[in-house]
Amino acid sequence: MPKEQNKETKKMILAVGAEIVHNKGFNNTGIQEVLKEAGVPKGSFYFYFQSKNDFGLQLIDFYSQFIYAKLDEAEALSDVSALDKIQRFFAEFLTLFEKNKCKGGCPIGNMAQEMGDLSEEFRERLQTVYICLQSRIARLLDQAREEGHVGIDIDTREMAGFMLNAWQGAILQMKVLKSISPLQSFERIVFDTVFCAQTKEHADG
Amino acid sequence: MPKEQNKETKKMILAVGAEIVHNKGFNNTGIQEVLKEAGVPKGSFYFYFQSKNDFGLQLIDFYSQFIYAKLDEAEALSDVSALDKIQRFFAEFLTLFEKNKCKGGCPIGNMAQEMGDLSEEFRERLQTVYICLQSRIARLLDQAREEGHVGIDIDTREMAGFMLNAWQGAILQMKVLKSISPLQSFERIVFDTVFCAQTKEHADG
Repeated sequence: MPKEQNKETKKMILAVGAEIVHNKGFNNTGIQEVLKEAGVPKGSFYFYFQSKNDFGLQLIDFYSQFIYAKLDEAEALSDVSALDKIQRFFAEFLTLFEKNKCKGGCPIGNMAQEMGDLSEEFRERLQTVYICLQSRIARLLDQAREEGHVGIDIDTREMAGFMLNAWQGAILQMKVLKSISPLQSFERIVFDTVFCAQTKEHADG
Repeated sequence: MPKEQNKETKKMILAVGAEIVHNKGFNNTGIQEVLKEAGVPKGSFYFYFQSKNDFGLQLIDFYSQFIYAKLDEAEALSDVSALDKIQRFFAEFLTLFEKNKCKGGCPIGNMAQEMGDLSEEFRERLQTVYICLQSRIARLLDQAREEGHVGIDIDTREMAGFMLNAWQGAILQMKVLKSISPLQSFERIVFDTVFCAQTKEHADG
């Protein structure tokens, strides 16, 4: 098989697998099911992946690339404050979840919940994604502070982690309520109350 | 078998199952594994539970009773402000997670992530738990407002949901980092910054 075709087939298996795992969970998904859906013969799976675990680790990369790309897009917005960029990043996912009828949730959060205790390899890979996202949001918060939208006393790294976690938890509640209202509450409380209060405090102090 | 003994055996299966499912996930746990660990013959499972799903639904009750009991304890504290009661409730779990080496996470959150899309019955049962916890925290926030620790503009119901979600997300990050630092950040940001800023704003206004 030509190398380019191999690459495409692998990508396709990952894309199909990503959707199934997103809906059903990693442990609950069989390789055969993925290959059947992708229309790829069973034997060829091990041509592309060393094991189901290797497949799962590559799924984490697949999912995180998608999230990083959304963050790239938000960062690239021009004439927009850093705080607005963060808000747009979350809003973009809110729209996606709404379109998806509140199903699936965050694939990285799902993997974290399912695999965080079961595999050290998964945990380490997920940790890298968590740290990367937290650092990128923290950098935007640093800019937002320079723009006067975030109080000077705020530990931006800690706040970035808090925001991502609050968002992750809101996604989980969305999944249970089948409503985007927890995501809207997140937006309201973080952007209208927390930062608003911070800057007020800052201005007062 | 005497009725009392039946009840005890059922409780024991639930307790053993709760621990296994907490560590491995619901879909990833086999009934046989639970019965083997509990030392109960396989055939008798269906004497106590209609199906694996029925077992899972009763596990949700088992887990939520544990959480409600912790909230009862916090509410019963005397000479403590309502905001401190909420803080003690979370702190109690922080201690448990620390003892448990950051493993397992929140069993209700885990079930929500795993089963929220897969079973309408599970989703509804989990929704009840979410709503109950949110209402109880909201009531404490109402008291905290009366005590002057929460700004009058705060929608206490929304804030209660936000706090529980931020906590849930922090637990997930804890599982990935194998560190309680996300839980400590939650405490710091919610109790030292959000409410502190709220009341400051309130006092200023």
